[in-house]
Amino acid sequence: MNLYAASVRIMPLKALLDPQGKAVTHSLQKINLAAISDVRVGKHIALELQAENDIQAHQLVDEACKKLLCNPIMEFYEFEIKPI
Amino acid sequence: MNLYAASVRIMPLKALLDPQGKAVTHSLQKINLAAISDVRVGKHIALELQAENDIQAHQLVDEACKKLLCNPIMEFYEFEIKPI
Repeated sequence: MNLYAASVRIMPLKALLDPQGKAVTHSLQKINLAAISDVRVGKHIALELQAENDIQAHQLVDEACKKLLCNPIMEFYEFEIKPI
Repeated sequence: MNLYAASVRIMPLKALLDPQGKAVTHSLQKINLAAISDVRVGKHIALELQAENDIQAHQLVDEACKKLLCNPIMEFYEFEIKPI
């Protein structure tokens, strides 16, 4: 068994409004950071896992995203895995 | 002015407990994904910004993190910037 670290990003779907991101954009404008636009706020999930190989590690994280971490009605996910 | 995309990760400090991450770890064990451990849940913020150059872009995102996005008592931040 090998140990892997995974970094998962779960973001609101691009077609959907992101009220939290919009609120952050407005707040940034008020503190003279109007150069920043199009803020979108999602989740970043860091995790460790044990797997036989890279392919199994990838499958496990994908399964975790599909079954628990990501709500596909409102969110999409991407992740990277590296051995540690 | 150039356009940049920034990807900011804001995570709970490693020295602090992360109850949300702990809850996710337990839930994963219940759905036969016990190979996954040490889950930590933070925020991922994607944004776009206009800046003269890479250095100014870096400064602007750093300022946004310090002034608004990150609470240094409980969180730390890292980010990457790339031109778009």
